[in-house]
Amino acid sequence: MSYNIAIVGATGAVGTELLALLKERTFPISNLKLLASKKSAGQIINFGGEKIIVEELTHHSFNDVDIVLSSASGSISKEFLPSAVKAGAVCIDNTSYFRLFPEVPLIIPEINLEEIKNQTGIIANPNCSTIIMLVPLWPLHRVNPIKRIVVSTYQAASGAGALAIEELKEETKAILDGEAYERNIMPFPYAFNLFPHNSPMTDNGYCEEENKMINETKKIFKNPDFKVSPTCVRVPVLRAHSESINVEFTHPTSEKEIYQILDRAKGVEVLENRHENRWPMPIDASEKDPIYVGRVRPDTTQKNTYEMWVVGDQIRKGAALNTIQIAEGWVENEKKTMVNEKGF
Amino acid sequence: MSYNIAIVGATGAVGTELLALLKERTFPISNLKLLASKKSAGQIINFGGEKIIVEELTHHSFNDVDIVLSSASGSISKEFLPSAVKAGAVCIDNTSYFRLFPEVPLIIPEINLEEIKNQTGIIANPNCSTIIMLVPLWPLHRVNPIKRIVVSTYQAASGAGALAIEELKEETKAILDGEAYERNIMPFPYAFNLFPHNSPMTDNGYCEEENKMINETKKIFKNPDFKVSPTCVRVPVLRAHSESINVEFTHPTSEKEIYQILDRAKGVEVLENRHENRWPMPIDASEKDPIYVGRVRPDTTQKNTYEMWVVGDQIRKGAALNTIQIAEGWVENEKKTMVNEKGF
Repeated sequence: MSYNIAIVGATGAVGTELLALLKERTFPISNLKLLASKKSAGQIINFGGEKIIVEELTHHSFNDVDIVLSSASGSISKEFLPSAVKAGAVCIDNTSYFRLFPEVPLIIPEINLEEIKNQTGIIANPNCSTIIMLVPLWPLHRVNPIKRIVVSTYQAASGAGALAIEELKEETKAILDGEAYERNIMPFPYAFNLFPHNSPMTDNGYCEEENKMINETKKIFKNPDFKVSPTCVRVPVLRAHSESINVEFTHPTSEKEIYQILDRAKGVEVLENRHENRWPMPIDASEKDPIYVGRVRPDTTQKNTYEMWVVGDQIRKGAALNTIQIAEGWVENEKKTMVNEKGF
Repeated sequence: MSYNIAIVGATGAVGTELLALLKERTFPISNLKLLASKKSAGQIINFGGEKIIVEELTHHSFNDVDIVLSSASGSISKEFLPSAVKAGAVCIDNTSYFRLFPEVPLIIPEINLEEIKNQTGIIANPNCSTIIMLVPLWPLHRVNPIKRIVVSTYQAASGAGALAIEELKEETKAILDGEAYERNIMPFPYAFNLFPHNSPMTDNGYCEEENKMINETKKIFKNPDFKVSPTCVRVPVLRAHSESINVEFTHPTSEKEIYQILDRAKGVEVLENRHENRWPMPIDASEKDPIYVGRVRPDTTQKNTYEMWVVGDQIRKGAALNTIQIAEGWVENEKKTMVNEKGF
């Protein structure tokens, strides 16, 4: 079995990574359609030697498409994915638009892939900071329920897209050359600077990025009272997010037990070298699949509480890889369903 | 009255700032002696038009010196400050060496300047991350005692000295030019990257920088059980530190009350513009005196708990300015003592 795939937002940072991962993981593709805005249409993209012309996204783009991987913007997903569903495709959406819709599964494959069977056309990929936090916390939570998380993020330019990465480089170069620079993407100076995440502020004093971490965690952990208090910050790093996480567990545990669980956890790699003071850094995680964890240590100010340091590639596991893993899960589920329907 | 001043470590990042602040604040100077390592001796430094030759630091450098401002390294302070005390000078030490000595006052003037009267020759200036955290927290703590702090820092290159700032710029330029670069100061790639603070790791799993924040806060707040759980991280910013702080108070409070207290607090400036999503950034604080605070919001996961975002110039209030303020306090105290001794 192979499938007709369409990528919405094919020319962006995540779109580019989706293409690389489809090739790297030899996803079973019959036909690959690349869709983007009118502005990007006509661009030619190389997919493992094959040249594919980017087409303009319209409501009629989805005939014969089995799987849509969507990663343009929330408003694009809102407008076009219903047409894809109507045309019979399953959509894996990397934007925030559908994430909290009750009928839309919100999936991190290491945590809740089984929810794929509840999908009714759209499956949502969580926010990157949420994924990077939850991949290592889930296996700990299953053994020793987490009562509360306080998290501060160190988010890379990639979170704002390919153009933001370029802008950070150009602005930095201008500063080093003593030249003026006019930004188009970021609202504040970013080179050698940082700022609280610039997603829109909401009434509770948290920005949308922070509310995503709060609300998506509640949905994924199936606990509407789950407690996460986040602070999201953009730092002048190119493409991996870091998170300083304070976790209160229900029962006593130890560094050793936590590392033992993480060592066995899917999608996690422990990078712990206390002797050399060597811990996960964005450059370790860049273009890598795992979420790296280190600096697990007891928070001596509160019982059953631990500090830890987590780093993951925002474009890869934070977005494109998680999307592809969902697509792979969907394919597996389809195969099983077919087998069942045929009565094997 | 004016005083003979000696600066130990006159050619470093903090030394340079000390000179700028002595001039800016018209500190009453009779004679200014600049001391540094043999390597830097002979260098000529301009102090408001006057050219001063840097002298080599020896045990005999302190004859006739009234005030020593020391900011080279802990081992230099350990070796030379006792000679300065013996020669009759008061030493204000910006290194960590003497900070936890019981007989040495550890002073942030906005908090505990009165302890200057207990000095017996050496007064310690706290760690930069500690100062930046405590200046805004102290006035809140006085009104509503703080039970526990969870803090994650975003520390600039300046914390590792003037050469680290230059190295960050040069490494960044090399990366942008696609060239190799050999670092001499930082142990890990720093350009477009970040890493947990590289101060030596200690047995409790916290690095020395984190232990400074824990232990210095206990001393300054005069509470050996005071609870701080810190994570210290170096980010590729040039000269101001940021901190994401989660504060649990004893009694209920509100954003409004917190901002009202901070608006009146010495050394603090509130930078809060929720409408424009505009909060303190390192470039706001660079080369400025106040500690900037914003993003005060309730942590909805725990009662009486608030999140806040704090940014301060690491070289200025985090080091040189605090040192000069202590020196000014010492001068005031001397004047009072003389008045008292004369029986006025």
